[in-house]
Amino acid sequence: MANIRDVAKEAGVSVASVSRYLNKKGYISEDTKLKIRKAIDKLEYIPNQVARSLTTKQTNFIGLIVPDITNPFFPELARAVEDIALSYGYTVVLCNSDEKSEKEIHYIDTLKQKYVAGFIVTTNQLRASHYEDLNVPLVALDRMIHESIPTVSSNNVDGACMGTNHLLDSGCEKIVFMRGPKGLGPADDRLAGFLKAVEGKNVQTHIVESPFHFGESEKIAKKFLTEIEGVDGIFASTDVSAAGALKAAHSLGISVPDQLQIMGFDGISLGGMLTPGLTTVAQDIYKMGALATRILIKIIEEIELDERVIQVPVELVERGTTRSVHR
Amino acid sequence: MANIRDVAKEAGVSVASVSRYLNKKGYISEDTKLKIRKAIDKLEYIPNQVARSLTTKQTNFIGLIVPDITNPFFPELARAVEDIALSYGYTVVLCNSDEKSEKEIHYIDTLKQKYVAGFIVTTNQLRASHYEDLNVPLVALDRMIHESIPTVSSNNVDGACMGTNHLLDSGCEKIVFMRGPKGLGPADDRLAGFLKAVEGKNVQTHIVESPFHFGESEKIAKKFLTEIEGVDGIFASTDVSAAGALKAAHSLGISVPDQLQIMGFDGISLGGMLTPGLTTVAQDIYKMGALATRILIKIIEEIELDERVIQVPVELVERGTTRSVHR
Repeated sequence: MANIRDVAKEAGVSVASVSRYLNKKGYISEDTKLKIRKAIDKLEYIPNQVARSLTTKQTNFIGLIVPDITNPFFPELARAVEDIALSYGYTVVLCNSDEKSEKEIHYIDTLKQKYVAGFIVTTNQLRASHYEDLNVPLVALDRMIHESIPTVSSNNVDGACMGTNHLLDSGCEKIVFMRGPKGLGPADDRLAGFLKAVEGKNVQTHIVESPFHFGESEKIAKKFLTEIEGVDGIFASTDVSAAGALKAAHSLGISVPDQLQIMGFDGISLGGMLTPGLTTVAQDIYKMGALATRILIKIIEEIELDERVIQVPVELVERGTTRSVHR
Repeated sequence: MANIRDVAKEAGVSVASVSRYLNKKGYISEDTKLKIRKAIDKLEYIPNQVARSLTTKQTNFIGLIVPDITNPFFPELARAVEDIALSYGYTVVLCNSDEKSEKEIHYIDTLKQKYVAGFIVTTNQLRASHYEDLNVPLVALDRMIHESIPTVSSNNVDGACMGTNHLLDSGCEKIVFMRGPKGLGPADDRLAGFLKAVEGKNVQTHIVESPFHFGESEKIAKKFLTEIEGVDGIFASTDVSAAGALKAAHSLGISVPDQLQIMGFDGISLGGMLTPGLTTVAQDIYKMGALATRILIKIIEEIELDERVIQVPVELVERGTTRSVHR
């Protein structure tokens, strides 16, 4: 864990300068600011937030808008945003839009009145123009709103390719892909990755649309598992959907992974709670939240961005819902 | 769904009065205010929040402090608080204390600077005196802080009795009770309920302490299931702990509910995602959040409280981790 001396050394400046920078007290040149910020980023330095808050006697709000607080992906993302924001002296206001555009507008308008420093938005209920007209620093997280808005997301296409290839390598010959809602960036990208991976391969595929909700996914999976004969693989676009598919398989007496293999996407802790544990394409949720927060704070503090669109790599986490390829 | 006319009728006042009340514009007598508020409570009327927000052009913050945003109980509670708060023109700032008192103090201090209207606190990291010195309207939710602070919680003692009796009725003769952290109100109350129910009964019991975290609970359950012979029942103090116990049983090849029955406590949606589905003592999470919010808003708006301590009833939800008693 880096301390203030490490930051000073890395930045090639004095400890006093770093302290002035952190406490926003006294003069520091733009050049020094930049060096310190880079060192903080590199070392992932987190100052003692309570001490900082007591010294600066002021804290700014960052609004974090999520579409569904009961989908565990978003609380896990929120924790990362909160950790990093606090370390820079910002406080996170978590807003649950419940996938309703009116609620989202309400939060945005309310927080703007309260002089919010910036927003991190993980929804795309509204038209891009609404966000562009905001005149408040803004970062899109998890899904792109518009090319003009800095964005942190996972590499969803590559991730879906990786997951699909794993199902193919594990012997699946008839795969149902449970795609998320049309028009939702990550959902579309994951479908694209799946289609790319199965192209030209000797495999039967079915595409079924399903919202990212457990109950709905369970119902939909039960339906297609009953109607389509010989399904031996399911790739669900989120872990919550995959949990629904697994529950459907159990209730139909289909053995997982012997008769049916299931792949999720997200890497939330729910996957490990299920039996068998869910094989999934895991996003680096903490890193996504942390990066988005760092970018937002740079915009707020008028520091130039090195990158405006960041795709965070994903990785395959093998658990019990697929047959091990490595025998 | 009640509308503004229903409220006026129930309150015995004009629609115009209700509108003035909702928009905080124009004179209304205290007596009329009280009638309207009672009618709104009774009918659970939710005004169109966007319309209201546009009219009133101001919104107040309510700080909701939760100990662990990644435990699904708290997002579910937060949704209820948010729904009701929005309906009265308040915006919820969700603060995750991560069970750290310094983070909790930071949030409280920061929000106080930002003129927060009141707090709903679901933690008890700090000493009661800290909360009493706040001089901001405050409601304790889920756990009592001090008798002087209005509190909404479940009837944890009765709930634990009910769950225990169900395990006994289902034939359990050797039950491990996984108690939560000592000093935590709901954890202590649930243990008290368990002890009350087993007193004088022909059953062997073991009390094991476990935090309300999946991974830790799984590890602890694995340990006692290996060390203590013939355990045929587990009562975990939260659903997340119960999920850990179920996972432990699966990994040890113990059949649930045939060899081992498991009872949870909370009623979060996770319980239904597991296989077998988790039998649990379900709290009325939405009602708890809604009641706490209504009470807080009454305090903020200086309306007298009918009750200062409310215990919300719980109910048994039978799923697959216990053997059905009704054969």
